[in-house]
Amino acid sequence: MTEAKQNLVKARLPRGFVDRGADEIGAVGAMLDAIRDSYELFGFEAVETPAVEYTEALGKFLPDQDRPNAGVFSFQDDDEQWLSLRYDLTAPLARYFAENFESLPKPYRSYRSGFVFRNEKPGPGRFRQFMQFDADTVGAASPAADAELCMMAADTLEKLGIARGDYLLKINNRKILDGVLDIIGLGGEDEAARRLVVLRAIDKLDRLGGAGVRALLGAGRKDESGDFTKGANLPSEAIETVIAFTESRRGNNAQTLEALAALVAHSPRGREGVDELKAIDELAKACGYNECRLLIDPSVVRGLEYYTGPVFEAELTFSAKDDKGQPIRFGSIGGGGRYDGLIGRFRSQDVPATGFSIGVSRLFAALKAINSPLVAAKPHRGPVVVLVMDRDHLAHYQTLVAQLREAGIRAELYLGGAGMKAQMKYADRRQSPCVIIQGSNEREKGEVQIKDLIEGAQAAAAIASNEEWKAARPAQISVSEDNMVAGVKEILARHGL
Amino acid sequence: MTEAKQNLVKARLPRGFVDRGADEIGAVGAMLDAIRDSYELFGFEAVETPAVEYTEALGKFLPDQDRPNAGVFSFQDDDEQWLSLRYDLTAPLARYFAENFESLPKPYRSYRSGFVFRNEKPGPGRFRQFMQFDADTVGAASPAADAELCMMAADTLEKLGIARGDYLLKINNRKILDGVLDIIGLGGEDEAARRLVVLRAIDKLDRLGGAGVRALLGAGRKDESGDFTKGANLPSEAIETVIAFTESRRGNNAQTLEALAALVAHSPRGREGVDELKAIDELAKACGYNECRLLIDPSVVRGLEYYTGPVFEAELTFSAKDDKGQPIRFGSIGGGGRYDGLIGRFRSQDVPATGFSIGVSRLFAALKAINSPLVAAKPHRGPVVVLVMDRDHLAHYQTLVAQLREAGIRAELYLGGAGMKAQMKYADRRQSPCVIIQGSNEREKGEVQIKDLIEGAQAAAAIASNEEWKAARPAQISVSEDNMVAGVKEILARHGL
Repeated sequence: MTEAKQNLVKARLPRGFVDRGADEIGAVGAMLDAIRDSYELFGFEAVETPAVEYTEALGKFLPDQDRPNAGVFSFQDDDEQWLSLRYDLTAPLARYFAENFESLPKPYRSYRSGFVFRNEKPGPGRFRQFMQFDADTVGAASPAADAELCMMAADTLEKLGIARGDYLLKINNRKILDGVLDIIGLGGEDEAARRLVVLRAIDKLDRLGGAGVRALLGAGRKDESGDFTKGANLPSEAIETVIAFTESRRGNNAQTLEALAALVAHSPRGREGVDELKAIDELAKACGYNECRLLIDPSVVRGLEYYTGPVFEAELTFSAKDDKGQPIRFGSIGGGGRYDGLIGRFRSQDVPATGFSIGVSRLFAALKAINSPLVAAKPHRGPVVVLVMDRDHLAHYQTLVAQLREAGIRAELYLGGAGMKAQMKYADRRQSPCVIIQGSNEREKGEVQIKDLIEGAQAAAAIASNEEWKAARPAQISVSEDNMVAGVKEILARHGL
Repeated sequence: MTEAKQNLVKARLPRGFVDRGADEIGAVGAMLDAIRDSYELFGFEAVETPAVEYTEALGKFLPDQDRPNAGVFSFQDDDEQWLSLRYDLTAPLARYFAENFESLPKPYRSYRSGFVFRNEKPGPGRFRQFMQFDADTVGAASPAADAELCMMAADTLEKLGIARGDYLLKINNRKILDGVLDIIGLGGEDEAARRLVVLRAIDKLDRLGGAGVRALLGAGRKDESGDFTKGANLPSEAIETVIAFTESRRGNNAQTLEALAALVAHSPRGREGVDELKAIDELAKACGYNECRLLIDPSVVRGLEYYTGPVFEAELTFSAKDDKGQPIRFGSIGGGGRYDGLIGRFRSQDVPATGFSIGVSRLFAALKAINSPLVAAKPHRGPVVVLVMDRDHLAHYQTLVAQLREAGIRAELYLGGAGMKAQMKYADRRQSPCVIIQGSNEREKGEVQIKDLIEGAQAAAAIASNEEWKAARPAQISVSEDNMVAGVKEILARHGL
């Protein structure tokens, strides 16, 4: 064609980013619509902020802070100010609320979905761009706001097709952890960094187990790759106090609350945390949400630094099988908590706030695994394809397409340069229900052939020989051009399309 | 509350970025759905690529190339490779098609909407993050593919409520411009940079007029701010040849084609361009799209460097009045063209491709201006608000909210800390249709008061005195708790909600 090219650019997605095709876009869209409807029923309203914020407005609250760029994609504006891609939807909401403080209703209930970006090492199921769907109540200090978010999350999961018993909203309170840290002497201003190390260690309980967390609370831990993570250097008694806290879940919420109360009896802040959990539990129970849905679990702390009170985690408790028959656990598909200090970064007074965030692709994967009808792949059907048998009559073929479209039938003209056989293959590839064929014979008679590809495929499977096929020409009808639309409609109706 | 804070972060959007509220999100969503339906009718299917690509995969094709970062937001990955936020949806599609070449049907018709980012000076109506909605046909060299995109754009605009006659699809062909440049001696390899200067100059015709463009084709131009832009340094005869090309629109497409053919009679490439436009015009006319919809206009060249053949621009031709009664012209709300070389950057052989891109926020602004029913602001109604008269009975109020939601009624508990008066104000602010009130009196009797805020507002306007109001208590009814849902439904029905 042309002379050999040099320096071809490699066509490849950046690591940790994905493309999505039509089926997934449609199914995820249906899921997002259902979440939206559920949230609106609870009085939340939509808001959207941009993907880019001033770096200082976002703050640094990510778990992965050891890396140089703290997990965030950043770049400098032409006036030297630093901009970042948002790493969650909470920090931008705090900026939005503070910037529009005067004009927003208070409390302010809002929801939003959008892409967030993490400058992290990509891995299986770990992406650098992914979608979150958040709901937040800003300006409400009451535990009723936290309880409502948990109940809304539970309702929403059920509406999406996840059965009661197949999920759990686990709740805990950062204030209780603060109380525990106070008790082991980590309460002071100068211990903030170590408190964070403890928090991050507990957050890894699920992945590393008790031994791994104990190592991180102590001298440190070497992982499989040989990388060493420095620990919090707690004395062993303190380590056991922390571990005892994470293990203080009992048979029901009332008993867990009792155990927690005993643990932090000497910390006013810890007791405050227990009281808040108790209030949430009572409000939820009054509405019929008991331990089978809202479970107090002290092992849940959440990795983000900005939480100040109740924290939530939505966990799927069933397991499914992957394509290879291996069991897969979905685990956490969302979480959140109270972040009373985040808006206060912008304003002289703190503003109480609480939120819940869904990891869209994780939830979607789970819904696919349980064959939720909401996202089940519908048999995809492509457009009717009008074949081009004679390039000199392109304009006429185009009018046939236009007639179909005018009747509301998805249709297209074959636009490539290939012959009949390749065109039929293309129509199969597009999963077309039928094709329109008009050679010179048909054109002279003012007719078209309509070939039913669905019935044709069935017939082809049943018919033994090539000769028999050619003689019968199954699933192909001849109609006048005037009757083309009616003929196509009949075929579509026959196949329930 | 706390001691005075220092170093507060300023809550502000970065320059050139915007937040969007519920009304706009809903209306734009309705518009996107309508575009999607229209494109699917034409056989296009959804695809999505991420916001981030390798910088080299995107290439540098933006008009604003004089700035150091060439209009693109870029950052380095931890393996030193450069990443960029996409500046359009075409370059990522080229990457996607090249990367998935084997598995995609050919020709490949696809559509996608998404945010794109430009590292440009923001200005009125000029944003650094904005949404585009693109449709592309890849793998079709035929002018029928270009014609189809133009017809689809026209159909789509009409479906969105823009009347025939209020828009124009203007088409031209880069090959004709190439022919003109060839004729004035700018055809060689070493003249690529100057050709680009000429292209960008013509692209500014709309904004700068003939004199400004002549200056840019010649020695250069000083703008109002005193900034000087270097010109193409063409001799005056060559300048007039270029201007004559841009002005060769005649009374109808056939006459314009004749004028263009005469202009580039000595350039094979130029003649090829004229033939392609002729083919597009014929195909469109065969389907009933004449000059009132598809107009050949040689002044349209499009600023992006990657176009190689036909280029399109969708222009709104009506003008509307803004809030201050000033006339506003909407001008171009989209455009596109053929980019046969873009995929060839990744592959040893070129792949023909053509696309059309809608500027979503511009189109939305236009639809608002003509009060298109699709995006017309519906009278927004908030949720039913259950007031909190007695904090000790929060759980009970919560159950009232739950009952309403279970009946499918949008409802919420007042979650703030304020008194009755502020709660009523909040409900007004949320545009609640009614509120539920239960003080200790009502609770003892197992009753609630339902206050109709819509009727109440009307009654308040009609009633003269405060005393009269208190005596009548209009629009407020007392019902048993069991009848609350029915009572609210009645009020909603009365107001058509």
